[in-house]
Amino acid sequence: MTLRTYPRFITLEGGEGAGKSTVLSALREVLHETGREVVSTREPGGTPLAEQIRGLLLDTHHETPTIDTELLLMFAARAQHVRETILPALERGAWVISDRFTDASYAYQGAARAGDPVFIAELERRVVGIAPALTLLLDVPVDIGLQRARGRGAADRIEGERDDFFERVREGYLARAASEPARFRVVDATQSPQSVAADAVAHVRRLIGESS
Amino acid sequence: MTLRTYPRFITLEGGEGAGKSTVLSALREVLHETGREVVSTREPGGTPLAEQIRGLLLDTHHETPTIDTELLLMFAARAQHVRETILPALERGAWVISDRFTDASYAYQGAARAGDPVFIAELERRVVGIAPALTLLLDVPVDIGLQRARGRGAADRIEGERDDFFERVREGYLARAASEPARFRVVDATQSPQSVAADAVAHVRRLIGESS
Repeated sequence: MTLRTYPRFITLEGGEGAGKSTVLSALREVLHETGREVVSTREPGGTPLAEQIRGLLLDTHHETPTIDTELLLMFAARAQHVRETILPALERGAWVISDRFTDASYAYQGAARAGDPVFIAELERRVVGIAPALTLLLDVPVDIGLQRARGRGAADRIEGERDDFFERVREGYLARAASEPARFRVVDATQSPQSVAADAVAHVRRLIGESS
Repeated sequence: MTLRTYPRFITLEGGEGAGKSTVLSALREVLHETGREVVSTREPGGTPLAEQIRGLLLDTHHETPTIDTELLLMFAARAQHVRETILPALERGAWVISDRFTDASYAYQGAARAGDPVFIAELERRVVGIAPALTLLLDVPVDIGLQRARGRGAADRIEGERDDFFERVREGYLARAASEPARFRVVDATQSPQSVAADAVAHVRRLIGESS
C-alpha cells in the first residue's frame, strides 16, 4: 500500500438511506465541542469544479455516462477534492470528515458495476494517494435503506438503479470492511438515528483519544 | 500494443493555429465526393456529455483543474466519445475524422504538463482501446501558430498557456510521430491553407485506395 494515512481524516460510507447526514452532524458537533477545526465535505464534490462534475454524474437529464466515463469522472472530481480541499485542511491541522471517499468507487463502480478493482486501485494510487485513519460504514439492509431514501423525493441517476445494484454496493462495502479491519468500523444502521450517531461518536472519541 | 486499429478512422493533430479546421473541411469533401459516409467530430467533445466536460476543461471562468483532474476529464470525455459516437459510426462502415484524439493527451497532458506517459498509456488501453489508421500531424513552429490562433479572439484556458508550454506540445507531437511512422504523416503547416489541405487530401486518397 503506497497511500499516506492521515490520522485526522475520517470518511463515512454506506448505501442509500443509511443515515450519513445525521452522523456527519453529530461528528462535527463532538469535534467542535473539543475545540477542533472541522472541515466536512462530500463526494462526488467538495470543490466548485468537483460539484460541477457531480452534476454531470448524478443529474438524470444528462446523457448517461458509460461505466468507464463514470469511473473517470468520479476520480477526476476526487483528485480535485483531495488537492484543493482535503489536503490543505489536513496540512493545517484541521479534522476532515468526508461523506464518501474512494471506498465508494470500489463499491459502486467496482462491485456494483463490475469495474476492475485493479484499475480502481491504480487510479487510487496515482491520483488520490491518501487514506483516512477511520472509515465508518453505516450498514443497513437494502430494503430498509431504500425505503428511507425513497421517502426523500426525486432520485438522482444512481439512486434510481435497481435493488440488485444496491445489493452489490452493500456486498462491496462489507468486503472492503472485512479486508481492512483496522481502518473500518461497521455501524448497525438499522438502529434509530440517535443510536447510529452515538455509535459513530464513540468510534470518533476513541480516535481523538489516540491522536491527541 | 493492444489497441484495435480501424482502417476508416482518421485523426488530425497539431498545436494552435495549425489549420485543422480547413483540413477537416477538405477531407470531408473528398470522402463525400466518393460517396462515403463521413462523421467528423472533435475532442474534447463529440457527444453531449463530452461537450459538457469540454466546457469544464476549457472555460476560463471555472476553477482550474489540477493536472490529474485535467487528464482524467480528458479520458472521461474520450471514453464517452469512443463508445457513443466513434465506434457506432465505424461499425456501420462510416469514415470517422476526429479533430484531436489520444495523441493530444500524450502531447498536452503528457509532454507539456509532465504527466506520466505510462499512466496515459494505461488509460488509453483501459478506456479507449482503439486507434486510427492515419494521423495527420499539422506541424507549425509555435510562433507562427500562435500568431494565427491569437488573431481569432478570446483564448480558452489551454490556449492561454505560455509559449514554452506550446513548444513542449510540439515536441511531444513530433516524438509521437517519430515513434509511430506507419500511422503518422507530418504535414508542413507553414504552407498556405490550400497547400496544407492538398497535402492532407493526398494522404487520405492513398488511405482510401488501400482500404477499398
